[in-house]
Amino acid sequence: MSQSKGTVVLAYSGGLDTSCILVWLKEQGYEVIAYLANVGQEEDFEAAQKKAHALGAKKVFIEDLRKEFVEEFIWPGVQANAIYEDRYLLGTSLARPCIARGQVKIAKQEGAQFVSHGATGKGNDQIRFELTCYALYPDVKIISPWRLPEFFNRFLGRNDLMEYAKNQAPAGMYQMTTDPDKAPNTPDTLEIEFKNGVPVKVTNIHDKTTCDSALELFLYLNKIGGKHGVGRIDIIENRFIGMKSRGIYETPGGTILFHAHMDIETFTMDKEVRKIKQSLSLKFSEQLYNGFWDSPECEFVRHCINKSQEYVQGKVQLSVYKGNVYILGRESPSSLYNRDLVSMNVQGDYDPCDAGGFIKINAVRLREHHRLQSKKDCKA
Amino acid sequence: MSQSKGTVVLAYSGGLDTSCILVWLKEQGYEVIAYLANVGQEEDFEAAQKKAHALGAKKVFIEDLRKEFVEEFIWPGVQANAIYEDRYLLGTSLARPCIARGQVKIAKQEGAQFVSHGATGKGNDQIRFELTCYALYPDVKIISPWRLPEFFNRFLGRNDLMEYAKNQAPAGMYQMTTDPDKAPNTPDTLEIEFKNGVPVKVTNIHDKTTCDSALELFLYLNKIGGKHGVGRIDIIENRFIGMKSRGIYETPGGTILFHAHMDIETFTMDKEVRKIKQSLSLKFSEQLYNGFWDSPECEFVRHCINKSQEYVQGKVQLSVYKGNVYILGRESPSSLYNRDLVSMNVQGDYDPCDAGGFIKINAVRLREHHRLQSKKDCKA
Amino acid sequence: MSQSKGTVVLAYSGGLDTSCILVWLKEQGYEVIAYLANVGQEEDFEAAQKKAHALGAKKVFIEDLRKEFVEEFIWPGVQANAIYEDRYLLGTSLARPCIARGQVKIAKQEGAQFVSHGATGKGNDQIRFELTCYALYPDVKIISPWRLPEFFNRFLGRNDLMEYAKNQAPAGMYQMTTDPDKAPNTPDTLEIEFKNGVPVKVTNIHDKTTCDSALELFLYLNKIGGKHGVGRIDIIENRFIGMKSRGIYETPGGTILFHAHMDIETFTMDKEVRKIKQSLSLKFSEQLYNGFWDSPECEFVRHCINKSQEYVQGKVQLSVYKGNVYILGRESPSSLYNRDLVSMNVQGDYDPCDAGGFIKINAVRLREHHRLQSKKDCKA
Amino acid sequence: MSQSKGTVVLAYSGGLDTSCILVWLKEQGYEVIAYLANVGQEEDFEAAQKKAHALGAKKVFIEDLRKEFVEEFIWPGVQANAIYEDRYLLGTSLARPCIARGQVKIAKQEGAQFVSHGATGKGNDQIRFELTCYALYPDVKIISPWRLPEFFNRFLGRNDLMEYAKNQAPAGMYQMTTDPDKAPNTPDTLEIEFKNGVPVKVTNIHDKTTCDSALELFLYLNKIGGKHGVGRIDIIENRFIGMKSRGIYETPGGTILFHAHMDIETFTMDKEVRKIKQSLSLKFSEQLYNGFWDSPECEFVRHCINKSQEYVQGKVQLSVYKGNVYILGRESPSSLYNRDLVSMNVQGDYDPCDAGGFIKINAVRLREHHRLQSKKDCKA
Repeated sequence: MSQSKGTVVLAYSGGLDTSCILVWLKEQGYEVIAYLANVGQEEDFEAAQKKAHALGAKKVFIEDLRKEFVEEFIWPGVQANAIYEDRYLLGTSLARPCIARGQVKIAKQEGAQFVSHGATGKGNDQIRFELTCYALYPDVKIISPWRLPEFFNRFLGRNDLMEYAKNQAPAGMYQMTTDPDKAPNTPDTLEIEFKNGVPVKVTNIHDKTTCDSALELFLYLNKIGGKHGVGRIDIIENRFIGMKSRGIYETPGGTILFHAHMDIETFTMDKEVRKIKQSLSLKFSEQLYNGFWDSPECEFVRHCINKSQEYVQGKVQLSVYKGNVYILGRESPSSLYNRDLVSMNVQGDYDPCDAGGFIKINAVRLREHHRLQSKKDCKA
Repeated sequence: MSQSKGTVVLAYSGGLDTSCILVWLKEQGYEVIAYLANVGQEEDFEAAQKKAHALGAKKVFIEDLRKEFVEEFIWPGVQANAIYEDRYLLGTSLARPCIARGQVKIAKQEGAQFVSHGATGKGNDQIRFELTCYALYPDVKIISPWRLPEFFNRFLGRNDLMEYAKNQAPAGMYQMTTDPDKAPNTPDTLEIEFKNGVPVKVTNIHDKTTCDSALELFLYLNKIGGKHGVGRIDIIENRFIGMKSRGIYETPGGTILFHAHMDIETFTMDKEVRKIKQSLSLKFSEQLYNGFWDSPECEFVRHCINKSQEYVQGKVQLSVYKGNVYILGRESPSSLYNRDLVSMNVQGDYDPCDAGGFIKINAVRLREHHRLQSKKDCKA
Repeated sequence: MSQSKGTVVLAYSGGLDTSCILVWLKEQGYEVIAYLANVGQEEDFEAAQKKAHALGAKKVFIEDLRKEFVEEFIWPGVQANAIYEDRYLLGTSLARPCIARGQVKIAKQEGAQFVSHGATGKGNDQIRFELTCYALYPDVKIISPWRLPEFFNRFLGRNDLMEYAKNQAPAGMYQMTTDPDKAPNTPDTLEIEFKNGVPVKVTNIHDKTTCDSALELFLYLNKIGGKHGVGRIDIIENRFIGMKSRGIYETPGGTILFHAHMDIETFTMDKEVRKIKQSLSLKFSEQLYNGFWDSPECEFVRHCINKSQEYVQGKVQLSVYKGNVYILGRESPSSLYNRDLVSMNVQGDYDPCDAGGFIKINAVRLREHHRLQSKKDCKA
Repeated sequence: MSQSKGTVVLAYSGGLDTSCILVWLKEQGYEVIAYLANVGQEEDFEAAQKKAHALGAKKVFIEDLRKEFVEEFIWPGVQANAIYEDRYLLGTSLARPCIARGQVKIAKQEGAQFVSHGATGKGNDQIRFELTCYALYPDVKIISPWRLPEFFNRFLGRNDLMEYAKNQAPAGMYQMTTDPDKAPNTPDTLEIEFKNGVPVKVTNIHDKTTCDSALELFLYLNKIGGKHGVGRIDIIENRFIGMKSRGIYETPGGTILFHAHMDIETFTMDKEVRKIKQSLSLKFSEQLYNGFWDSPECEFVRHCINKSQEYVQGKVQLSVYKGNVYILGRESPSSLYNRDLVSMNVQGDYDPCDAGGFIKINAVRLREHHRLQSKKDCKA
């Protein structure tokens, strides 16, 4: 047998697609290490491991990244209220750099010069995956079979290899969430406690279930959200690559956290700070969607957003019901909400006369503008 | 009797509050014209008219502004996807400049030098009202009783005069919307057609109800949204004046339009145009919330947003159910969504190999950055 | 001889570089049309034409695009105050889409399926050129020899072919501008008149020279600026491609217009409109630098910026001296500068007491913030 | 004599204006402490002290704040490249919160409930001064004589009391800078070293003068800039209060630092980080101009900008000549400028073919857009 071309660490899923890539890579003369990260997806990891070995993988690494995924990727997303094009909560976008980071670590550790993956040539995932690899391992070579004519010309016709998921939404394609119209008729009521903009405890008001570790808490919110059909979307989105595509997502736990965090943030954060933070979050969401998690700009923005969360703490009560999250109330030691200040009955040290001056000064510019316009209209 | 101090046009609601102001203004020596605009609120306009006359109003004007409110104020809000602090759809903020414009028109027509209103001294409405008045009628004098010590010191204790609405949310405070858990178990399915970013037709798929005039259409969406408990929020918001306050709003029709418009916009608008439009919308929403509708900057932004809507046309199908709006599908003659381009099975004139170059060029900067960081780490 | 592969329209400069490409394209079996646009550069166009014919060009087109370059490309840049990374006035960036548009027009007219150019594989110009071609002629094929291994491997060693200009700045590399320390000891004083944000007339106060056509006016400003050493920069810039590179530019006329336009704009434009316009200009500058002139987003932004210039009219007096532009004064029929309003001696209808209310309302938020901080500090 | 109304700390300048206020405050029944901060202005501090005592000040505090002014206020301005409306370097805006902070410290220390100042009722300084006072001492009472009718009605006619400076620019009004046309015919050449975005050393290449403490360095740059007529501007600016006014400023040292810092920043900072930093700087400049230095949003933005400066280090060589600053070169241990990467002769690990893919992917969207437009045009 000819000499090996080198070692490839392949992001392996256990499915037909990456199994096929595994075999093809071997055919091409590479030694293949299969890498399978657990970020919470439904998977029979043991079966996948056996299959990879059976297909000829030299080594198989299965890593449980769930804790670091939640703490190092999802939590910054929660702090940012990250949302792409006003609707998509960026779940997949967060998973990709987490998995690629793990894979690169193995590649370096095993002395592999190559990494490979099964993402298609028209999607976002190829970019997210590869940008992280190049950033963390600048000398790596990436083998992207779905972009290689010798691969895709051979397999493209084989429909059994195709994943249709992204562009067709058959009934039953949602895996984590109940259909809202089949969801329970009784809401669940939760209290979520935040510190530094991150959830630290969830309590189910009714049955007193409590979670206070990051992973457990997130899984629990996924379960409750899923039960009530929360967080489904069916949208047209704009891929980085310049195409519009249909995306169907479910983010049950993320949606609950999105609403709860936004509420406690508005409650505790100065409005002008929040406006600036909001513009940073827009940038963060785009960086994330486009695959730039491991870029200097995304590191910078994450730092700034984290700084903004210093006082975002307190408890939010909410109910989850028929696809919706309803905020019931909130409390915080660092709230800037001052009941007396707002009250009609208490003047406090607020003098309503000041508002008159405030308005008149704001009007200076508007009145000048109008006078000039009127003069012009007269002349014309 | 002493000479009149002049004529005041008072924004009159028929309620105790502005009735009290009407009487007080007369006491102070003004002649009072009551002005009551119908922008769709629940009101017995005839009764209000009688009451104003009975209290001594010299004249009473009741104007139905509903059509211009929908077409000239709500529609630009729909085009913008206007939303304040990520949650509030700005219904009241839109009504205020519409009413003030009507009131100023009457003031000029009747030769009145003064206008007056019943907004409190801590809220946003005083600002919205007065900025529009100053902008459209720069020489007007504004009498704002709730900011005048001689008025508020006299009436502040009289609790029957107070409106508690804004800061307490008793059961039953929602007027337009059913409680989601009491909402029907069957959804309504609608098709909304847009042209130039504005709804031009609504069809109820089931019962074939059709509306195609702006006002009728908006009222119908309010009815359907209200029936299904859509568009309730209970939030903490940041007033322009610098206070945090609790706001409870219901915007049933606006919420349906918000979701439908966002969907058709993402479907038909270039992604980079949309990003710029989104930043303009953020500015528009803030201008609107803060009362700057009649400012040069808001006129400018409305013009730009309107320009962006040129190709925002097509039909959105959606269902309304238990407090939620679910997008079911969309179609458009100007969609940039190209099924072939996105398809896995069709290459079209897209060459997947290009994506490799695209990614590598995007990685140039990231790799350089990482190399520099590594060098530093080595030295340190 | 074998059959032609088709016809290429080549952006031809008359220099060694593109002459070499012309010959090489013929060698490869293409018929070549040489296209040479005059956008104001120093060039012996007749000699270039002869040379192209001598080298075997089937046809040679020489077009004077100077007028459309100034009116359709430079003027929008002036309206925008376009500047990249705070320093670069984007002269080259403006020329590229103008030339490519001309070239595409010829390609379509002559039925050519190919276009070609001599831009290198690491620069911005390749992108600017090609994005315009793809946008205006989506089915065009582009031949980019400096990115083809068969071309650059053959010619890379031939140093006589290289243009070093971009990365070495020998004395004498500036062509349009005098060295500021050799510039005249007497300033020139100009008056520039603007309408709709665009210069319509230049008058030299001393010698009464007057220009009022776009092209003539721009050439004159280039001459005066050049004479006084205005508009040289030597910077590090960030290419779209992700590299930092050194750029040495001279933009004498553009620099004068930049200062004059900014002055008249600030004088006549509402401050809040200008803030929004400024953010649009930042986007425009980046689009322009990156080659996206012919994109939907750049068309949108140009429309908005143009709208903002409605009242940007009037006259600016300035002197040009030793590398600098000094604004001496300005006047405008649409100035929002109101001498009385600003005067210390005239109250006008401005009541200074209002400023107290304005400040106190602005302080509400700051005082609440401080109180909360103090409470925390006490506890800690 | 009647009982004292309390103690006022007055921002005293030694001039007629604040002397008059001092006497008037005593007349009104206050005890007055005069506070005079040295932030580098030309002033006979000893004479001012004597005068204040002579006029009846209970105590006089003279503080040299120059070091903290440079280090805590000017340096963050340099890091930010702070500039208002593209032209004004914000010198005065930086001084105001520094002085007010000192004054508030004295007020608290001396148990004074009041502070006062001589800023007029139409300017920005009243706002800058008072917002800082309210923020740092929420319960303070502010006496602003130029906004009190009893004061300004009495003194307004007395022209000798007026300061004309802000709105008339007689010859000789510049104090720190030579007229550029009278400036030396020989440039000064400097090298400025930066660490963390802040200058740490200045060397005059010719005479080997060296400064390395913040204050000394800044004073030296003021001297050199002044000598060469650098940093004069005569602009129309937009006051916070909504008026346009003429502003004449000289910022010699600040202008040199502005250019030098921008150069080293572009040299060392990732381009995407810089874009975000630039948008933060725009916000910072506006906050600063409007008087919000001591606000939560300005603290947040300063923190973020400071973070961005981590790698902004190195040396910039520049010459100062006839009103201009010319950058001659720069070097840095953390430069992202990679000569090999940019070179035409070295491929490095950059493959020019990738640029083709990069461009084609960027064109996907543009081509789709054009095709859709063409279809429309055909139909129409």
